[in-house]
Amino acid sequence: MLKFTHSLVIKGRHFTGYCTNMKRTVFFISDRTGITAELLGQSLTAQFEDHVEFTYHTIPFVDDEDKALAAVARINQTAVRDGVPPLVFETIVRPEIREIILKSEAILLDFFHTYIGPLEKELGVRSSFSVGKSHSTDDLQAYDTRMSAVNFALNNDDGATTKQYDQADIILVGPSRCGKTPTSLYLAMQFGIFAANYPFTDEDLPNIKLKDGLAKNRHKLYGLSIDPMRLHEIRTGRRPDSKYSSFQQCMFETREVEALYRREKLPFINTTSRSVEELAVKIMNDTGIERRIF
Amino acid sequence: MLKFTHSLVIKGRHFTGYCTNMKRTVFFISDRTGITAELLGQSLTAQFEDHVEFTYHTIPFVDDEDKALAAVARINQTAVRDGVPPLVFETIVRPEIREIILKSEAILLDFFHTYIGPLEKELGVRSSFSVGKSHSTDDLQAYDTRMSAVNFALNNDDGATTKQYDQADIILVGPSRCGKTPTSLYLAMQFGIFAANYPFTDEDLPNIKLKDGLAKNRHKLYGLSIDPMRLHEIRTGRRPDSKYSSFQQCMFETREVEALYRREKLPFINTTSRSVEELAVKIMNDTGIERRIF
Repeated sequence: MLKFTHSLVIKGRHFTGYCTNMKRTVFFISDRTGITAELLGQSLTAQFEDHVEFTYHTIPFVDDEDKALAAVARINQTAVRDGVPPLVFETIVRPEIREIILKSEAILLDFFHTYIGPLEKELGVRSSFSVGKSHSTDDLQAYDTRMSAVNFALNNDDGATTKQYDQADIILVGPSRCGKTPTSLYLAMQFGIFAANYPFTDEDLPNIKLKDGLAKNRHKLYGLSIDPMRLHEIRTGRRPDSKYSSFQQCMFETREVEALYRREKLPFINTTSRSVEELAVKIMNDTGIERRIF
Repeated sequence: MLKFTHSLVIKGRHFTGYCTNMKRTVFFISDRTGITAELLGQSLTAQFEDHVEFTYHTIPFVDDEDKALAAVARINQTAVRDGVPPLVFETIVRPEIREIILKSEAILLDFFHTYIGPLEKELGVRSSFSVGKSHSTDDLQAYDTRMSAVNFALNNDDGATTKQYDQADIILVGPSRCGKTPTSLYLAMQFGIFAANYPFTDEDLPNIKLKDGLAKNRHKLYGLSIDPMRLHEIRTGRRPDSKYSSFQQCMFETREVEALYRREKLPFINTTSRSVEELAVKIMNDTGIERRIF
């Protein structure tokens, strides 16, 4: 908790505040989804959250003057209410829309125009300033790859059949509820990777042997494990007071799968404190699997 | 196609190139996954892709000096090979790692440190420079919400049962292969939204009536439609030369679902040229559904 006198002049307006518990409103503004502004903006505000309590709002699809003016009105109302200017992280492409947002009573952090000038200079060509230009989403082939990968992940999610494993880029193995399904789906959705997943269940234990479908595709296997206490928590949320969720069973399963990974020299990762994004990228990085879409 | 003489001095090194077909190598470098750098970097390079052919490489998890030095070596080799300095988009948090990358023979666009100074000044507090600080991924509760949402989407993906629809935040309806499944999964994964989806099939057609489970949750319904020619293409990839994939059937189904949406005054969207991200955010924006994770 911090005490300081805040004093700042922004576009002729004087804001002062003597803060013991700092709060700030943050807007993410975009002419598209706002997802990029959110990701980068949050990684920045996260650096200050020991001292400042942020409230977030996203205003997506600000792609004409009326929507820009409405956004400015909302920002200015917030500035008056808060007594401090909101932070605005924006990725607006069209200069005339951005001009309008610039006039708001905000601290504006521009994630797009900041770099366009230097890039034009370096590349020696002018920006096309086209909204929604991005590589994969506008490309039907990339769209199809992504959909095929999502379908592949869904069709190969439970280990019931291993007959499509020859088409897999990777096969995630591990105990139930250690993160295989979301990681396969993320690999499919974000990178177009064909990821199957296979759960080791009671019938595989103890002394797991790789079944035919898995043994044949040994080079594609990647193991997931998890701290038994965390697994116990997750499974308890699903089936409380069962053998399945008992700490003892979770200990047993994680020990057995890790013994398998070591015995078979399979690459593996502990999922406990990792996000799905991080797992997906680590797995690609470890195995050298190439993304099918950028 | 553009002709120009490129001449630039970067850190004492002189690069010249007479280019008729410009190519540039782009690196995304991060101490985490690199996904933010990729998203923002690609929206920037997309503005120049009529003139420049970019090749992309991501170097994730650059979180110690050795990895930073290895990245610099790779960048410098590329600079020599290409005869022009690569573009490096980076989101490295720790100043001492960034210092190393700064010494590479590259055009460096720094998506993190560019803003940290102004933010420190504005907020009156110092950045913690902690790697991996982000709101949702480190938070177990957010993790659980996300997993529950993904499971909900998977368990409510085929319309076989409507009994969990009272727990849904939204129910996407539409013909088979118009984008319901990936959109529901994206809503779950990115925003923690509980999204069910229900396909209208031959047995619902013609003159679709909302079945009990749907009628009871009418306020949660959101329609998807698609151009019949695109639907025909997608279905042909799946089941060529079938009634299911015929253009006539695709025409019939899209006409019938859109008639339903109008008759029942359901909000709906055409998915044809929209990315999954865009569909998800548009649906949230139209309905006012709040994300469960940020």
